[in-house]
Amino acid sequence: MKTYTASITVTLRRAILDVQGKAVEHALHSLHMPALGNVRIGKHIELDVQAPDKETAHGLVMDACSKLLSNPVMEDFSVHIMEKASGVPA
Amino acid sequence: MKTYTASITVTLRRAILDVQGKAVEHALHSLHMPALGNVRIGKHIELDVQAPDKETAHGLVMDACSKLLSNPVMEDFSVHIMEKASGVPA
Repeated sequence: MKTYTASITVTLRRAILDVQGKAVEHALHSLHMPALGNVRIGKHIELDVQAPDKETAHGLVMDACSKLLSNPVMEDFSVHIMEKASGVPA
Repeated sequence: MKTYTASITVTLRRAILDVQGKAVEHALHSLHMPALGNVRIGKHIELDVQAPDKETAHGLVMDACSKLLSNPVMEDFSVHIMEKASGVPA
């Protein structure tokens, strides 16, 4: 068994209005940063996976994403799996 | 002026207890996924930047991160700037 680190990004689909993003965009403009716009806010999830190989780890994380971590109606997700460097504290 | 896309990841510092992450970890274990653990939840922010060059765009985004998008006491952030492909709808 190896330990892998999964980095997951969950984003609202483009067709869905991102009200949190709109609020942040408005706040940026109020802070005199008109060059920034089109703000979209999503979630970034990091977790450790115990698995015999990278493919199994990827499968476990995809399963967790579709069952719990994202709402498949409104959100998309992307998964990136890295082998955890040994000896590095979590 | 060019348009750049900034991808920002805001994460809680390691020393700060991530209660949302703990709740998700508990839910994953309840869903019979014991191989997943050490869950940390952060924010993923995407935005467009109008700037003459990549360095200026990076500076504008770093400024926005430290002033509004992250809490410097509790959170770390990383910024990645890409040139926006022309002709691709936002």
